[in-house]
Amino acid sequence: MKLYSFPGAPNPRRVLIFAAEKNIALDIINVDLMGGEIKKPDFLAKNPSGKIPVLELEDATCIAESVAISRYLEAFHPEPNLFGETALETAMIEMHHRHIEMELHTAIGAAWVNGPVVASMGIIRPIEAMRERGDRNARSYYERLDRELASREYIAGDRFTVADISATCMIDFAGAMVNLEPDAGLTHLKAWRDRIGQRASVIANPISG
Amino acid sequence: MKLYSFPGAPNPRRVLIFAAEKNIALDIINVDLMGGEIKKPDFLAKNPSGKIPVLELEDATCIAESVAISRYLEAFHPEPNLFGETALETAMIEMHHRHIEMELHTAIGAAWVNGPVVASMGIIRPIEAMRERGDRNARSYYERLDRELASREYIAGDRFTVADISATCMIDFAGAMVNLEPDAGLTHLKAWRDRIGQRASVIANPISG
Repeated sequence: MKLYSFPGAPNPRRVLIFAAEKNIALDIINVDLMGGEIKKPDFLAKNPSGKIPVLELEDATCIAESVAISRYLEAFHPEPNLFGETALETAMIEMHHRHIEMELHTAIGAAWVNGPVVASMGIIRPIEAMRERGDRNARSYYERLDRELASREYIAGDRFTVADISATCMIDFAGAMVNLEPDAGLTHLKAWRDRIGQRASVIANPISG
Repeated sequence: MKLYSFPGAPNPRRVLIFAAEKNIALDIINVDLMGGEIKKPDFLAKNPSGKIPVLELEDATCIAESVAISRYLEAFHPEPNLFGETALETAMIEMHHRHIEMELHTAIGAAWVNGPVVASMGIIRPIEAMRERGDRNARSYYERLDRELASREYIAGDRFTVADISATCMIDFAGAMVNLEPDAGLTHLKAWRDRIGQRASVIANPISG
């Protein structure tokens, strides 16, 4: 299986860490992100959204979206389980994972897309008020996470799941690229990130690529 | 099981249609949305995101997020299958569903949150440029959907799935509340919506509540 990826990019990194947790070997193909390869017809035929990661199967079927790819990998490599064992656990992981994606991810995304790095690429006309709102919402979500992580070890409960992978990749990206590192005073959030940072899957796939 | 809901609200409607497809009876509790009930401590204890829907189980465990609730229901009522049978089908449904959520849903949400109705509630300071971008991105996504639906009957392939439920609820909401009805010239999109509109689950749960 081929994975279209880019070193350090947050969404491919989610799949790389997920696969590493399960010891799945993927054939990594790094796209020419700066050259705009993912917005060109050949790549859009693989994923009409023009985004990475994309998993290409032996028969050329392409699966886009990090979570869709991760679910596919989990079906063939069920251990260690990262999406939930029982119906209730699966639902609770999905809930926490979606809160991270729909609230934290979108806030960081708004701050990034309307920030100076993307503006310098000339892709999009930045909206400063949107960047500020994204920044504020991300910081507010960090505080919520810090409160929640006071009473549990991981994002979705008492064990490591796909929700921890997504949260780690987004928060690391926010710190490295969006000037949105969590405040040092959020000690529960920091302790969680330190815990995640000890995993071999995360050490092997750093944000810097 | 109790479902905290509100008549016509798009995300609770996703669960109502999903449950109707499976003939699952839920005890519906309509919250006082206009009175801000979902932002008050009693409700925030059920869902810290302060959003509906929330499913409350017999033991008072609460599951938030329409898709998490739907997955929970699917586990106990597997027929008709709406999330996928095989690993590949499950991944493809997830991919299409996520494209709808991450691209169309966020665009409609940006247009709504920064539009005149929400502004009149005084909840948020609207950003007009963000509303315009949301509007433009939603219309562009409608065109993409129209192209895709030229060669398949449903959002994720050749059968009705959870992705059709989400897309229907969002597009209906966009038309009714955000002045973002798809152009009549998008005939494949219109034919798809007409097809969905014939389902008993959708007829029984209209956007108007």
